[in-house]
Amino acid sequence: MKVLLVTADGFEDSELLCPMYRLKEEGFEVDITAPEWGQVKGKKGYVVSANLSFDEVEPSAFDALYLPGGKAPDKLKYSAEVQKIVQAFDRDKRPMAAICHGPLILAKAGVLSGRKATCYWRVAEDIKAAGAIYENVPVVIDGNLVTSREPADIPFFMKEFVSMLKRAQQGE
Amino acid sequence: MKVLLVTADGFEDSELLCPMYRLKEEGFEVDITAPEWGQVKGKKGYVVSANLSFDEVEPSAFDALYLPGGKAPDKLKYSAEVQKIVQAFDRDKRPMAAICHGPLILAKAGVLSGRKATCYWRVAEDIKAAGAIYENVPVVIDGNLVTSREPADIPFFMKEFVSMLKRAQQGE
Repeated sequence: MKVLLVTADGFEDSELLCPMYRLKEEGFEVDITAPEWGQVKGKKGYVVSANLSFDEVEPSAFDALYLPGGKAPDKLKYSAEVQKIVQAFDRDKRPMAAICHGPLILAKAGVLSGRKATCYWRVAEDIKAAGAIYENVPVVIDGNLVTSREPADIPFFMKEFVSMLKRAQQGE
Repeated sequence: MKVLLVTADGFEDSELLCPMYRLKEEGFEVDITAPEWGQVKGKKGYVVSANLSFDEVEPSAFDALYLPGGKAPDKLKYSAEVQKIVQAFDRDKRPMAAICHGPLILAKAGVLSGRKATCYWRVAEDIKAAGAIYENVPVVIDGNLVTSREPADIPFFMKEFVSMLKRAQQGE
């Protein structure tokens, strides 16, 4: 399984690192894409390497999408390239996971209308405005979509995301 | 299963957070102990809450021990209270995991003699001096002991630590 992680400078460090390590623990590959190829820096100072710029991404080469939070999603939600990537994953019902501010990207890509989701409490109104049915719980699942509120939800979030990926891997 | 996480100010943030979230994902409880009860701060600025001071720890109340790295282990390795805690876990062969600088605590507690282990490369000589058989690989298992070198090893580390805990839970 190959997972595409979409981010930019200002990501929430634990929301990028912990799920990335968890996915790798399962033997899944994780490619990081950012506005430009190369180093991307988190709010707390962790640095990761993006191996793809947005224009190099071929969505069909990946099995799932992951959108960590932090300050990155506020910038990325207006990117037409990112919106196209998200729409491509959703069209094929491939698993998509987003946490904290990450669901803002789903909202602006227009894939939340009429769907259950959660996010960081400060941006709940934004996802509701995009048509989401907001729930204030650690993890929400709606079809191919897994969303959570904040770093403390990571245990619930990754349990569901990994489980969804394993089902997809088995062709269920 | 209850896991005791031993740390102090200056912990390596991802080495505390990612394994903690991973253990919670499995439904395991994680108690954090530090020199004093209350807030403990990582190198990168993450804050966690220690619910036990070292003198309040009753090792027999826990099924496993976890020692993250960072600057904390360099201070903690000289703590007689921490050394006693480690020795209690090792005496009963309960699972113990340590990463990066964490194995320094095992070294000073005298539980590494003649055992295979790994750690951050800069402190490899320290664990060898304590009698460890050092191996420069992502994860090393020796009986009840799991050790790794650095944050990038977390996927390998947690796979083995979680697997060991599940076996212990089943009474194997």
